Amino acid sequence: MVQIGIIGAGRIGQVHMRGIASGVPNAVIRSLADPMISPEAEQLARSIGVSQIVSNYHDIIDDPKIDAILICSPTDLHAKISIEAIHAGKHVFCEKPVDHELARIAQVESALKSSGKNLKYQVGFNRRYDHNFRALRQAVLDGKIGDVQFVRVSSRDPKVPHAGFVQSSGGLFLDMMIHDLDMIRYLSGSEVVEVFARGTVLIDPAIGEAGDVDTATVSVTMANGALALIDNSRQAVYGYDQRAEVFGSKGCVQNGNDLPSTMVLSTVDGIVSEKPLWFFLERYMASYQAEVCSFVDSIVNDTDTEVGIADGRRTIQLALACKKSMDENRPVRIDEND
Amino acid sequence: MVQIGIIGAGRIGQVHMRGIASGVPNAVIRSLADPMISPEAEQLARSIGVSQIVSNYHDIIDDPKIDAILICSPTDLHAKISIEAIHAGKHVFCEKPVDHELARIAQVESALKSSGKNLKYQVGFNRRYDHNFRALRQAVLDGKIGDVQFVRVSSRDPKVPHAGFVQSSGGLFLDMMIHDLDMIRYLSGSEVVEVFARGTVLIDPAIGEAGDVDTATVSVTMANGALALIDNSRQAVYGYDQRAEVFGSKGCVQNGNDLPSTMVLSTVDGIVSEKPLWFFLERYMASYQAEVCSFVDSIVNDTDTEVGIADGRRTIQLALACKKSMDENRPVRIDEND
Amino acid sequence: MVQIGIIGAGRIGQVHMRGIASGVPNAVIRSLADPMISPEAEQLARSIGVSQIVSNYHDIIDDPKIDAILICSPTDLHAKISIEAIHAGKHVFCEKPVDHELARIAQVESALKSSGKNLKYQVGFNRRYDHNFRALRQAVLDGKIGDVQFVRVSSRDPKVPHAGFVQSSGGLFLDMMIHDLDMIRYLSGSEVVEVFARGTVLIDPAIGEAGDVDTATVSVTMANGALALIDNSRQAVYGYDQRAEVFGSKGCVQNGNDLPSTMVLSTVDGIVSEKPLWFFLERYMASYQAEVCSFVDSIVNDTDTEVGIADGRRTIQLALACKKSMDENRPVRIDEND
Amino acid sequence: MVQIGIIGAGRIGQVHMRGIASGVPNAVIRSLADPMISPEAEQLARSIGVSQIVSNYHDIIDDPKIDAILICSPTDLHAKISIEAIHAGKHVFCEKPVDHELARIAQVESALKSSGKNLKYQVGFNRRYDHNFRALRQAVLDGKIGDVQFVRVSSRDPKVPHAGFVQSSGGLFLDMMIHDLDMIRYLSGSEVVEVFARGTVLIDPAIGEAGDVDTATVSVTMANGALALIDNSRQAVYGYDQRAEVFGSKGCVQNGNDLPSTMVLSTVDGIVSEKPLWFFLERYMASYQAEVCSFVDSIVNDTDTEVGIADGRRTIQLALACKKSMDENRPVRIDEND
Repeated sequence: MVQIGIIGAGRIGQVHMRGIASGVPNAVIRSLADPMISPEAEQLARSIGVSQIVSNYHDIIDDPKIDAILICSPTDLHAKISIEAIHAGKHVFCEKPVDHELARIAQVESALKSSGKNLKYQVGFNRRYDHNFRALRQAVLDGKIGDVQFVRVSSRDPKVPHAGFVQSSGGLFLDMMIHDLDMIRYLSGSEVVEVFARGTVLIDPAIGEAGDVDTATVSVTMANGALALIDNSRQAVYGYDQRAEVFGSKGCVQNGNDLPSTMVLSTVDGIVSEKPLWFFLERYMASYQAEVCSFVDSIVNDTDTEVGIADGRRTIQLALACKKSMDENRPVRIDEND
Repeated sequence: MVQIGIIGAGRIGQVHMRGIASGVPNAVIRSLADPMISPEAEQLARSIGVSQIVSNYHDIIDDPKIDAILICSPTDLHAKISIEAIHAGKHVFCEKPVDHELARIAQVESALKSSGKNLKYQVGFNRRYDHNFRALRQAVLDGKIGDVQFVRVSSRDPKVPHAGFVQSSGGLFLDMMIHDLDMIRYLSGSEVVEVFARGTVLIDPAIGEAGDVDTATVSVTMANGALALIDNSRQAVYGYDQRAEVFGSKGCVQNGNDLPSTMVLSTVDGIVSEKPLWFFLERYMASYQAEVCSFVDSIVNDTDTEVGIADGRRTIQLALACKKSMDENRPVRIDEND
Repeated sequence: MVQIGIIGAGRIGQVHMRGIASGVPNAVIRSLADPMISPEAEQLARSIGVSQIVSNYHDIIDDPKIDAILICSPTDLHAKISIEAIHAGKHVFCEKPVDHELARIAQVESALKSSGKNLKYQVGFNRRYDHNFRALRQAVLDGKIGDVQFVRVSSRDPKVPHAGFVQSSGGLFLDMMIHDLDMIRYLSGSEVVEVFARGTVLIDPAIGEAGDVDTATVSVTMANGALALIDNSRQAVYGYDQRAEVFGSKGCVQNGNDLPSTMVLSTVDGIVSEKPLWFFLERYMASYQAEVCSFVDSIVNDTDTEVGIADGRRTIQLALACKKSMDENRPVRIDEND
Repeated sequence: MVQIGIIGAGRIGQVHMRGIASGVPNAVIRSLADPMISPEAEQLARSIGVSQIVSNYHDIIDDPKIDAILICSPTDLHAKISIEAIHAGKHVFCEKPVDHELARIAQVESALKSSGKNLKYQVGFNRRYDHNFRALRQAVLDGKIGDVQFVRVSSRDPKVPHAGFVQSSGGLFLDMMIHDLDMIRYLSGSEVVEVFARGTVLIDPAIGEAGDVDTATVSVTMANGALALIDNSRQAVYGYDQRAEVFGSKGCVQNGNDLPSTMVLSTVDGIVSEKPLWFFLERYMASYQAEVCSFVDSIVNDTDTEVGIADGRRTIQLALACKKSMDENRPVRIDEND
């Protein structure tokens, strides 16, 4: 059994507690750390049998019985805790993004390289473990659509966030589109060469005042020659809209949204289906569990993680390049600063 | 916390163990009984923290710390164990069917009435807790389709069972269509008045030799005046096909099958979606957990169960009437033997 | 060129005028007969170049230049005009039903047999020429679903007719379900052996007072062993609902409704598609043209019509058997009066 | 009745002949001109009653009985014939594009302005008359999705054209994407401000050798602030793929492809729907008729045409800007050369 310590008992920390408790084989949560744990989180931890709840996360890092650490802290601690955990010889699962700055991500990479141990490091790009996106990827891998020529990702949140969130999150490209940039890499099996991004404020002026955009598109070229397009919106009033399409020489594969039920109601007003599941917690719950299963598997079987530190670094590079492209209204090559 | 004892560690017993372990609030499994438990079931029980595993189910019935019993034994023990559990003052959740004979179900009803306690008794018609069927029922309750005029249920298994199963199960009407007969009651909110059933052997001659049919239809009249139709097949080669439709004065509501993903693949061969989830374990897993949640809620809040012994009796009456209708090739009123 | 005379310039007569004018190869309308032609019908006839408009249909029957006659008169004249046309050596396309009485249909059959000529006779079961139903039939013929085991037809009108119409039309079984009875023959490629029908008045009491029903179901056995179910309603408030399903040993094929567009609107109120095309004129327009093309082809190529007088007779037998079954609440074999 | 002369009896000329013959009210084809008419086109013209077939199109322009001219000639004659027809006082319907050069389109505009008559001029952007795209536009006009924030058009041909066609057509941006550029103007109700285009050769090297691309994307900003994305492919092996989506503050509207039937086949291989209608002649036939109806209406009612010479000019400006953007790998403002 892999002994797990979770650092951070906020929303995503609780998601992982629930996920592990209800079915991650070969894993058990040994400790939970949070400096200001909520009563709700504490009750959850107790109900699923987490015996050790500590306020100082170093108690987890220093615990020799802990094999692996899930970092669910605020983003600005991700890199710091990652490095400390690596130095302590722990496997690390780190929520995305690893950091907003490439230099700090490089420090994590250095720590991993110099650890001298075969430590596993996984970044939380959970959508790679979602049934709908994974089905697309598998179809591509199986050759069902031939050579990939075009990828499209549409990703829209159900509700505009507070302007305050936007400032701390790094903005649309770093907190939202980063998933979609990773997704076009995942679906195409290729790396991004150049981006051209547009962003605008059409939904909430407060977002503009906070220095961010709420509507954005990106036009991408991939190393394998394929083109890609991404569109983002901070507010689709009908719910969380998460769709992708991969087009190739032998066909096309696309997915749609998950719905609460397959019910269709026919009345004088039209033929009505249910709206998509509301937001990421409802929509992607199974993927959060699946990514931790995969992480534990990589420890148990001593294999590489499917989403490593390099993926964490590259997606940040892409998000930053998109921002620059938008700001300078020109296409930006990813390697232009190498 | 409601202390639960599970009697029977076969397939459906294991389903309930998993369901309770991964999220039935206010419930804990105290004991599991099985005279010949499989290593697989034993390991599952251990992994979710079931400490007491006994071979004699009377150890559960006699345990004063047990509040409620889940009967997951072979069908022919359902009524016997039900009565013993009731006499011991336990709440009972019994897998369907309660029994194939109305007289024995009547004995369970008598035991309940004479117990002098407000014991909860629930029959395992899990489909009433399925998201797709529940959505239809809710739409009807909300008046979205007006007065119900017609109900249709199509229910098809993915694979023909062994002829041996057919003999012990009581046959298509008692083991398979019983769910659909309950479903038209649930969806319409009304009782069946008369049935006209047809059955035939089109798939597997061995089923015919065992005295059963593999393809059947029933034409029904309901007490509220609505008509209903059911079609059943033991083998839909494309997978488990579970659909219903309720038609009324203001509209129509229908559901479709759940799929592994929303992926659609377009090639020269056509536009292809995924096949339905394979069979009832995959398709209805969430409903097994939800029905036990509801059962535990009815204990905690001291309310009636949503699916009681009367539902267990009525569905058997309907299945037997269908069989008689088929055998005698005439419409059979449900009350004709009252 | 096949010279056509149309008898009857009402709704269906105008449908055929439009259909032939806009594209039935090898056919031209020479004459139109109607004792009380409407200005609208006359204008239509002129605009498409019909030069002869007469009030007495005998002028068409007696015209030696006319090759084929389309009978679009009131139903009670269908058989009479058919026989006169046959005696005059004309090919006949007769709107359904040929007659409500089997004896009169037999007279048409006799006239055809004794004509001594190879006259073509087609009955207007236009749905056999509809793209959606034809696709199902073709899939069955191509063996895509293996042996047919079950057929279902759901057929619902958008609006309840006047009680007066119901009386002259012969009622639900003779004017509405007759199409569906023909459809299960067409889709299964087999004949009906026995029917069990239920009918009730749930929509409009005036229909009940006129001696008819507005909601009906039929349970059917086919000669090839397959079972079938039909459900009918006189009023689906969301529009004309025309669906079928054929289930077999290798799969299942079903169709849905045609919509005005593929538009899907997503808002806070749900995900909304368009309602079905309103009624049979909108929905089946192409099929009316296609059936006449087929009729003309059978004349030009001297082949049998695809839907002959025997189909006209058998569907009436079935509709009458359904009525009897409903009235006597018992299954009725089609051959029980032979 | 509007007397129409058609110049050009090739594929699109025949489409218009058929469309007018089978139902454009208030219009009649008086003459057809083609210097080398095919036997097939001649037979079609005869069968629908076109009496005058001439080789020299000036016979049509000089015919005082002709009210309106449909220009279906090769593209390089569009502007020349347009000007001659305007000088002769004829209303003009001109197939798209009016010309590949803006200067020549300007000459047509001048001719119109200086004609001193209220001549109607319509450009053949038929997709504006398609039921699926028109439904989207109507939903936008009805305010169903609020303010438009994003538009997407996916447009893919079923089969790569000959490299020879590519050279004469002006290439992907001028012959194919021009429809989609017009579509985002139509759907958004706004003009394009800036484009950023990418193009590449992924399907057929011969297209690259001919100086064109076969795969392209465009990122667009609109005058109303909305963003737009277009993706094009010369070869979708599953058929003609024509979809659009308009997203706004109150919702989203999208359409799908038209299929030959609504049939769905379920087998062990999956759940299969039909492929899209093969190509533009099958897919857009009704829209060709509808646009001519609209043209004739604008003559009869003396109203502006819905798609005028300015639309013809602007779409060419956009296509040329896309080409420049791709060649120079930078965003190009539409007004940068004004």
